[in-house]
Amino acid sequence: MENTRQTAVIGLGSMGYGIALSALRGGHQTYGFDVNAEQAARFLADGGQTGALGDLAPQLEVVVVVVLNAAQTESVLFGDNGVVADLANGAVVIACATVPPDFAESMSARCAEYGVHYLDAPISGGSIKAAQGKLSIMAAGTPEAFDAARPVLDSIAETVFELGDSAGAGSAMKAVNQLLAGVHIATMAEALTFGMTQGVSPDKFVEVISKCAGTSWMLENRAPHIVAGDYTPHSSVNIWPKDLGIVLDIAKNAQFSAPITAAALQQFVAAAGQGLGHEDDAAVAKVYARNAGLTLPGES
Amino acid sequence: MENTRQTAVIGLGSMGYGIALSALRGGHQTYGFDVNAEQAARFLADGGQTGALGDLAPQLEVVVVVVLNAAQTESVLFGDNGVVADLANGAVVIACATVPPDFAESMSARCAEYGVHYLDAPISGGSIKAAQGKLSIMAAGTPEAFDAARPVLDSIAETVFELGDSAGAGSAMKAVNQLLAGVHIATMAEALTFGMTQGVSPDKFVEVISKCAGTSWMLENRAPHIVAGDYTPHSSVNIWPKDLGIVLDIAKNAQFSAPITAAALQQFVAAAGQGLGHEDDAAVAKVYARNAGLTLPGES
Repeated sequence: MENTRQTAVIGLGSMGYGIALSALRGGHQTYGFDVNAEQAARFLADGGQTGALGDLAPQLEVVVVVVLNAAQTESVLFGDNGVVADLANGAVVIACATVPPDFAESMSARCAEYGVHYLDAPISGGSIKAAQGKLSIMAAGTPEAFDAARPVLDSIAETVFELGDSAGAGSAMKAVNQLLAGVHIATMAEALTFGMTQGVSPDKFVEVISKCAGTSWMLENRAPHIVAGDYTPHSSVNIWPKDLGIVLDIAKNAQFSAPITAAALQQFVAAAGQGLGHEDDAAVAKVYARNAGLTLPGES
Repeated sequence: MENTRQTAVIGLGSMGYGIALSALRGGHQTYGFDVNAEQAARFLADGGQTGALGDLAPQLEVVVVVVLNAAQTESVLFGDNGVVADLANGAVVIACATVPPDFAESMSARCAEYGVHYLDAPISGGSIKAAQGKLSIMAAGTPEAFDAARPVLDSIAETVFELGDSAGAGSAMKAVNQLLAGVHIATMAEALTFGMTQGVSPDKFVEVISKCAGTSWMLENRAPHIVAGDYTPHSSVNIWPKDLGIVLDIAKNAQFSAPITAAALQQFVAAAGQGLGHEDDAAVAKVYARNAGLTLPGES
């Protein structure tokens, strides 16, 4: 079909798996790859395909990279078994990890040497939206990169912000969003537990504050996890030392002082240090609760 | 009329003046008082009344106190010319300043000695909503205090959160809201200016982030002031060293560690120190911009 593409999704974690399923549902011939063989097997069972990436590469038109960070992105693209050298002219890489803007620029330039387009395309929305094909994507790249990526973008995203014609602008906006999202989660936890010291129950906190000027998207999304005592990881604590660390690295290189981000980062580092790294990021509230001798809902 | 009350509004600043106008519009016989005689004269010109508070006090049924802080509230109620001693049995004080919860409890107990009800009633919503009679009020007090205050609350508020039957619970929720609101304003400024270092323009920031997980009520309300370069004070920088200071005093007394609030407070203190205290609180962005050598919209 004209609007379907030979597509690979590299990295089948909570976001990548949903993206692969959405691409498949969109009618694209979709191959899934992950260092964990069980994930690729699961994708086969769900109707997808897999195989030897090196062999398949010449026929791939779109390669979506949904790994954890810049180092993994570089390894997948240009490492020992890097895929870019085997891609055909005119193929496009859609790079979804949160990375520094200058890293995205560098990857784009290196792809161009092989005649491969690069779309700087960090994602937002969480695993549920990924599985629904309703992600938000903060995208930047040449018009040719957008054109090549468009049919797959249409299958995996509800909103594509087109932020410019050179790689880096998408990653810049993603860093801005992560700064806010991370600080807002930690601040929600700080305010909720502070309220508990003054007799404000967590459920009253959600009921009242969500209708007041103190609310945020993250507060409305995450505070109910604390009320329910449910720390099933929709997005884990471990995301934040990584993403706020990227933000502060970028900031330091730009000689930009970001004291609130730095304070929030420390709370997530403490949460990881308390062994909460794989819990939902709302578990940063446990750091505050332990420091203040408070008992959160569901704890005894 | 059955549902109108002899009402005094003490403190005709940006919030109190709007409250007084809303009470007047609600049909209440409304007297306005302020240490600045020009404000009382302006209220007269707008159809309100004023006079000698001590002479009028015995006939007053509702006294709304809209001053800056706990010290001014105590002075108005129990200072040298304090109004409570002259009020009739069954009158109600509606206390709107942001104060510590235990201060509200203490004021309520002292009012009770005079047979006067006390509604702990911090307000949220800003001067525009105050003038429209559409404030949010975080209220706590005895059922008798609510009953006595109700006709005036109906004229000045869109939403009255009833947070309990003893004073203090309203002030506790207000402190929680101010923690979040203050941190969110400063974090918006941190993220917007951080974005500028990476080529994200302030208008693109508002366009994209307001639709992403990084958004907050304060971001959507205040960031457009920075885009417009308009620092007309709807709510001034000077509010925040005061209100976040109250939050941190309460927190310290409860042995609650609030590092993100502390970091945000310092940015507002720096803004005040740079002479920006009477500008809109979005001007905290100027601290970040100056530290990073950035030029905000409207600056040269």
